[in-house]
Amino acid sequence: MKKTDINRLINPASIAVIGASETEGKPGTIIMRNLLRSKARLYPVNPAYETVMHIPSVSSVEQLPPNLDIAIITLKAELAVKAAAECALAGTAFIIIVAGGFGETGSSGRAQEDVLRKIVETSKSRILGPNSLGIFVPEANLDTIFVEHGDKALSAGGSIAFISQSGSVGVESLGLASNTGYGMRAFIGTGNKIDLSEMDFLDWFFNDKRTDCIALYLESIEGGRDFLELSGSGAEEKPVVVLKAGRTAAGAAAAGSHTGRLAGSDSVINGAFKQYGIQRAWDDEELCDATKVLSMLKPAVGNRVAVLTPAGGFGVMCTDYIDTTGTRADLQMAVLSPETVAIIKEKTFPFASCINPVDFTASGTDRMFIDTIQALLADQGVDIIICIALFAAPAITNDLIPALANTIKMADKPVLVFTEYGPFTEKYLLDFYNHGIAGFPSISRVVRAARFLVERGKLRKTMRCTDSSGAGRYCGESSKEIEVITECYKKWMAELKTPGKPDELEAKEFLAAAGLRIPEKQLILPEDGPEVLTGLHFPIVLKVCSPDILHKTDRGGVRLNIGPEEITNEITMMRQAFPGEPLIASPMVKINGPEMILGALHDPTFGASVMAGAGGILTELYRDTAFRLAPCSRENAESMLDELKIAPVLSGFRGSSLDKGKLAETISRFSLAASVVCANGGQIDINPIVWNGEDWIILDAKIILG
Amino acid sequence: MKKTDINRLINPASIAVIGASETEGKPGTIIMRNLLRSKARLYPVNPAYETVMHIPSVSSVEQLPPNLDIAIITLKAELAVKAAAECALAGTAFIIIVAGGFGETGSSGRAQEDVLRKIVETSKSRILGPNSLGIFVPEANLDTIFVEHGDKALSAGGSIAFISQSGSVGVESLGLASNTGYGMRAFIGTGNKIDLSEMDFLDWFFNDKRTDCIALYLESIEGGRDFLELSGSGAEEKPVVVLKAGRTAAGAAAAGSHTGRLAGSDSVINGAFKQYGIQRAWDDEELCDATKVLSMLKPAVGNRVAVLTPAGGFGVMCTDYIDTTGTRADLQMAVLSPETVAIIKEKTFPFASCINPVDFTASGTDRMFIDTIQALLADQGVDIIICIALFAAPAITNDLIPALANTIKMADKPVLVFTEYGPFTEKYLLDFYNHGIAGFPSISRVVRAARFLVERGKLRKTMRCTDSSGAGRYCGESSKEIEVITECYKKWMAELKTPGKPDELEAKEFLAAAGLRIPEKQLILPEDGPEVLTGLHFPIVLKVCSPDILHKTDRGGVRLNIGPEEITNEITMMRQAFPGEPLIASPMVKINGPEMILGALHDPTFGASVMAGAGGILTELYRDTAFRLAPCSRENAESMLDELKIAPVLSGFRGSSLDKGKLAETISRFSLAASVVCANGGQIDINPIVWNGEDWIILDAKIILG
Repeated sequence: MKKTDINRLINPASIAVIGASETEGKPGTIIMRNLLRSKARLYPVNPAYETVMHIPSVSSVEQLPPNLDIAIITLKAELAVKAAAECALAGTAFIIIVAGGFGETGSSGRAQEDVLRKIVETSKSRILGPNSLGIFVPEANLDTIFVEHGDKALSAGGSIAFISQSGSVGVESLGLASNTGYGMRAFIGTGNKIDLSEMDFLDWFFNDKRTDCIALYLESIEGGRDFLELSGSGAEEKPVVVLKAGRTAAGAAAAGSHTGRLAGSDSVINGAFKQYGIQRAWDDEELCDATKVLSMLKPAVGNRVAVLTPAGGFGVMCTDYIDTTGTRADLQMAVLSPETVAIIKEKTFPFASCINPVDFTASGTDRMFIDTIQALLADQGVDIIICIALFAAPAITNDLIPALANTIKMADKPVLVFTEYGPFTEKYLLDFYNHGIAGFPSISRVVRAARFLVERGKLRKTMRCTDSSGAGRYCGESSKEIEVITECYKKWMAELKTPGKPDELEAKEFLAAAGLRIPEKQLILPEDGPEVLTGLHFPIVLKVCSPDILHKTDRGGVRLNIGPEEITNEITMMRQAFPGEPLIASPMVKINGPEMILGALHDPTFGASVMAGAGGILTELYRDTAFRLAPCSRENAESMLDELKIAPVLSGFRGSSLDKGKLAETISRFSLAASVVCANGGQIDINPIVWNGEDWIILDAKIILG
Repeated sequence: MKKTDINRLINPASIAVIGASETEGKPGTIIMRNLLRSKARLYPVNPAYETVMHIPSVSSVEQLPPNLDIAIITLKAELAVKAAAECALAGTAFIIIVAGGFGETGSSGRAQEDVLRKIVETSKSRILGPNSLGIFVPEANLDTIFVEHGDKALSAGGSIAFISQSGSVGVESLGLASNTGYGMRAFIGTGNKIDLSEMDFLDWFFNDKRTDCIALYLESIEGGRDFLELSGSGAEEKPVVVLKAGRTAAGAAAAGSHTGRLAGSDSVINGAFKQYGIQRAWDDEELCDATKVLSMLKPAVGNRVAVLTPAGGFGVMCTDYIDTTGTRADLQMAVLSPETVAIIKEKTFPFASCINPVDFTASGTDRMFIDTIQALLADQGVDIIICIALFAAPAITNDLIPALANTIKMADKPVLVFTEYGPFTEKYLLDFYNHGIAGFPSISRVVRAARFLVERGKLRKTMRCTDSSGAGRYCGESSKEIEVITECYKKWMAELKTPGKPDELEAKEFLAAAGLRIPEKQLILPEDGPEVLTGLHFPIVLKVCSPDILHKTDRGGVRLNIGPEEITNEITMMRQAFPGEPLIASPMVKINGPEMILGALHDPTFGASVMAGAGGILTELYRDTAFRLAPCSRENAESMLDELKIAPVLSGFRGSSLDKGKLAETISRFSLAASVVCANGGQIDINPIVWNGEDWIILDAKIILG
């Protein structure tokens, strides 16, 4: 990556506008007008003008002074490329190209992008775009965006760095900002990313004191693990929320295995983001809501929510959304202490309902809001507060807003506000925002925003915990172990009976060599009789062993619980059903608890990934699975298991004696083997793996090589 | 219920305003000013004025003409009660009381409500309220609401009847209406419902030609099953969506049983609503969004969604929300036919992406939108269309809106629009609305709205199917069967060994008498030896049989798979563990497929209810259960089973041979027994019930009497 001083882009002293104009509606006009408010020195370029908006204009790029900070090219695609080359010659530090019509429209556009790449390679200039929405830094009045985006209403002093690949999503976020209160430190439209991408900006914003939170809208993650490493390390200090639109090809690529089918298009991203402490949003509204609270409020240290309301109905709706098991961090309604209840009743009404939600009815006053919030802030059983503020009630005044701001300014717990008041809703939301309070106009949105604060609190704990143990995100000393397993793998590959197609026995043998437990086993070749089964304890399981038979159970290729008196007969029957195929015999494993599934695949963006989940029919019915990148630490594996709905069964639910820690260790070990197999495009299914009272044993395994 | 002509409330010829005023900010002033625009004759009442807003005023209610259509009382609580009595004496048809300070504030307020009830009982007047937000009929300019609600922007001609118990929720809905396009036929604020409630209005709106859809915000459902019968029968023609805030006490009341714990506060309502074809929303935003689409568009006949977009990112976000398994009707992305793809490529760009979502990039034009939608409307594989309309793109103009309106006006498939454009979003949404197009400002909301149309389509099919079979919502001829079971129940109660506390054997015997299958069984009394087990086939299961031992399995009170050689020893061990308790022996049942759970409880609002779900550990982990009211028809039971995530296993998933139809029959039969037991406050747990290859057999059952 070229070393570049991003500071010259965010705080430029000089800006050239190529195609500056005074014709109404032209990008060159809108951008010039916007920039008049910035303190940078402006250099309009247009042969048709002597001055543009009273600023002396030059007729060509050649006439510009050398080494300007920024050149904004407002011309259409082909002319833009030519101008970019000229700007690069003049030593311009940053060239912003707003025109579309490049790679997104086909091969001729892609050829133009190649020309731009060449310019970057052969100069010290950096290019933002093409198809970039431009940049916007409210505090500096620096605005190169040529579409209306409601900046007039934007307050300075916001602390969200917003990086968007898409123009549309960018415009909408700026619009939301102006409507309901949302403060940006800076907006960067990366567009087609032929040079500058989020990777170039993340580091700068992580180090920028005015930035508290990063919002990213990405359609592609070219960096893969580098992106995760960079944003994950920054996320330890500043929350990072990503809206990733643009599906990976994982589903299609890996459909050969059970794991691949379960990966879908997004599960690996979900797992990888969790592993690196990155949060995820699913549309632009959610991205803005999440970064709004994360930039304005402290994370919640727990998930116990208290709700206060002057209208019972909204309190109940809020409770409904809190009780609904979320897809990320779950919330629960706090149980208020008797002291809190007593204080609230004293300060409000004896008939106030204090079984959270606290409902002091429409007769409530400003004072009652403040007193109640103070009581809730002091309650040890409350981690986060949602305040329902309705200004239609007769005794609620606009003074509530500054009073609330004063109360929560010093608080160590986050307080979020829901407000709705017909056509005045947005005015109130802006008023709240200007007082430093995060407000939302619907119950579902305020609860969703609270979830992000709780998730953030949880992620911070995991990050710290991982740091202190020294284990990191990956296994300790994994590189050495991976070398050993790689040697095993090469030898094992060379010895496969059918090259490139390991059977069940071979798959298990590789996993055993990588340190996982498999049952005792005995191969019965077509010419063998039952007398080969000398060492095994009955009852046994008998399975056909062929790389070509994928669904053994469905095809009658698995026979369970065979006693010594039945074995001869059973072998004969298997030979009739599967002539010429070898069989495996193993002692029946006494299973304690549920069947689990483990898997591994190569994700096109992030590489080797592992999956753990509930096995058997649960896997497909309830899709109770979680993913992480491989190799993963024991801590990662534990957090993956905690994500499963079956988690309680792994931790003593109804008297189960399973060892979850040992399963996490097993997964961490498995992830080393996965790194090796998947690096070569392979996939692994282990289904099931079970607890026999002492260890986790692989009952069935399949390896599909890439 | 008193016979009342609701028409006189909705289309009044005469309105008295008690407390009419000209003092700025007073309810009596705001309401008078609102009503000046109506065509009803107004009668202000206030001793301090000779005229109010140029209309002659009288000084007391006594001076009003008799038999007015409406009297709106704007006075505070105590004065309001007095005025109501006077209005009733004067024969006023409808008395609206807007004041709060009644039942919601404690016992003195409740006493005032009793006085109001007395007035209703002893006169022909009907009372709306107290604590009513009033009524609002946009088309008639009839508006009795004293808080600002954005009516200025409301278009006439809307077809949603909106009935709200809460003032706040009402104000917000009216506000939403004014902001983003939402058309009400009428708004009714029912408030404390001391007389008029939703029950009085539903029938009128179902018969009103101008009403297409009903939105209900309820905090309490006093009517219970009557409410369901009434709104369910209306829902066959007009969609009904209920936001029910205010939790039932079911969870607490029924916690004795497993079923009770699973019922939570809301599962019974969910089931009952589905049974009656009523849809459910979770906050006011969702209630408004749902009724907006349901009033403007036809239901979808299937769940296959096509998305078209000029911006790839929004298309992907949309796909993400569609793929996420919803809590109600699931959606799926449609697979476009080759003809559709060919047409779209021809009419747009060869580089347009036509793997649904259709993305014709930001270079798209108005014409391309229309051509693409026409192609999608013609595709047999598409049931519903989401159009992402972004006006920031250079070739998209405002003409798109009327063109789109023309295209979809005649369509037999619903088309929904998402639009966002910074600070102009609401303007565009209103513009769409005024052209008859349902638009939404976020991807999650437009997809959620689409779900309501798909759910509505599905519910209509079920309703019709139930009608044609003649089976109704309940079992055919159930009353006769219930009589028989009631007789059984009485006899069984009288013969219980421990009065009021049936043990497992007794519970099973009652269920067998009600027509359900239980295994063969033999009671072993403390004095019996193994020789009593003459008729049973080994291996057997041995269980302790006591109404006092709730968790037999956890306490070692269940021994499985006992052979003839072990039976003496096992009986001895059980006697040591549970001295003095009888034992039950049954042959082991060969189980095919999963364990299921059935349950029954008495819900405080709706009475006897049944539950079905995945049994064993699945029940608590995955909460894979569904509820219906009892008795329920076979069709109801089938739809309940289809709701479960385990449903595929009941229908041949991975070669299972279970008979789902027979399970539905079993549940319908069980629901008759449930009606009898729960009518008396009892609860039933059947856990598990299993398929033995021929029938569904109850392996364990518990009945807790009320």
